[in-house]
Amino acid sequence: MTIPKDHPRYESLMRREKLKDMVERGIVDPTGLISHGRGEAFDYLMDEKSVEPALKAEEAAAAFLLNAKNPVICVNGNTAALCPKEISVLAQEINAKIEVNIFHRTEERMNTIIRFMEDEGAENVLGRKPDARIPGLSSDRALCTKEGIFDSDVILVPIEDGDRAEALVDMGKTVISIDLNPISRTSKTATVSISDDISRALENIRKFAIKMKGNEEYIIETINTYDNSQTRQETINIICFILKNEFQKEA
Amino acid sequence: MTIPKDHPRYESLMRREKLKDMVERGIVDPTGLISHGRGEAFDYLMDEKSVEPALKAEEAAAAFLLNAKNPVICVNGNTAALCPKEISVLAQEINAKIEVNIFHRTEERMNTIIRFMEDEGAENVLGRKPDARIPGLSSDRALCTKEGIFDSDVILVPIEDGDRAEALVDMGKTVISIDLNPISRTSKTATVSISDDISRALENIRKFAIKMKGNEEYIIETINTYDNSQTRQETINIICFILKNEFQKEA
Repeated sequence: MTIPKDHPRYESLMRREKLKDMVERGIVDPTGLISHGRGEAFDYLMDEKSVEPALKAEEAAAAFLLNAKNPVICVNGNTAALCPKEISVLAQEINAKIEVNIFHRTEERMNTIIRFMEDEGAENVLGRKPDARIPGLSSDRALCTKEGIFDSDVILVPIEDGDRAEALVDMGKTVISIDLNPISRTSKTATVSISDDISRALENIRKFAIKMKGNEEYIIETINTYDNSQTRQETINIICFILKNEFQKEA
Repeated sequence: MTIPKDHPRYESLMRREKLKDMVERGIVDPTGLISHGRGEAFDYLMDEKSVEPALKAEEAAAAFLLNAKNPVICVNGNTAALCPKEISVLAQEINAKIEVNIFHRTEERMNTIIRFMEDEGAENVLGRKPDARIPGLSSDRALCTKEGIFDSDVILVPIEDGDRAEALVDMGKTVISIDLNPISRTSKTATVSISDDISRALENIRKFAIKMKGNEEYIIETINTYDNSQTRQETINIICFILKNEFQKEA
């Protein structure tokens, strides 16, 4: 389908077409399209921009990641499809490892995603040879590498399912989630819950990281003053404000 | 994927798998999965049940449909995939025509969907031979039949896009939408905006129709007293209440 560049929803429609192609390439599972749609709904409810609480969470994310001993960025099918370059540049900026971990796991799909990430510039992508398991999970999602997810102290999980987010928190890790739904199980569980579009979130984290890198005081103060519960409360207030405002506009 | 029957999200997961299969059968366009996801998000925000304003809208829908001269139920890929039987029995109950109308239109896909609907019990499904156009639309979505959509006075459009909903209202029709997002362009435009899951909505309309059939007074009073703006306002209030309540529960 050809989408005219001046279409008001050009970006969003292009992204849908991209995800559709990525299903054909075996990178995105068809049900990944449904989860993308759920995110889109919440993005509408935040006017498709990075709202103030999202920026606060992204600043905190940068601080936690820069302060980590072994930071890891977890990548699933949708993340790889939508943001391969953003993941790679962020990983370089904060010196983090990248590990692919997917729900609908086959060796073939793992290889396809890892190769795709590498073609797009990611280096040393982990996940091909899992040698550890996340305790408490029965599915293949438990499979991970010791040097990556298993031994990480701070982990960034874009578009994560609730079970795994909980299991990672139970392991004592600092879990940073990117999930547009502020009341999802993942957002409820994470240490830092970013409710923002994944591309914008990754870019914002990178910008904050550039700004605070080497400034230990800024990093530590950001970590110490960050209040995730308040951030989520503010996000919910914004959604309700926009919902009611949208309705008023018509009247 | 096998989903255990006691999984708390069994229904929702089964439906995702069904839509995935329906993509393979050519009934659902892959981007239809994304739109299903958007609906799911709003369904979560209404506790996955038919909230009070949805029931009011469904009662009004039954009244408008029973009072119509030429009621038509419009069917797209997602609707056919998820509710072929519900559409058929509702059409019989209210004596409405069924017309298939899709955004990503090919003759092959039209035939696949119509055949599927007929196999599932729908009779005389229109749409194969369009002989009219909805004014103001440039895409293939404008194609329709004169005896069906074009000459309808009351039209039920589950999961409709905003452009077409507006074009149908501009034709002077009573448009009843089923769209979980209460602030979508479709919901803003429709005469009766039902924000409910499509299966529940179709079943509820049918039950109301059975209840009010033959009771002219009940039908006319329902039509005369229905306030769509108030219904949508109530829906938004409920979403905000649930959002805030979900958050409070954790504290």
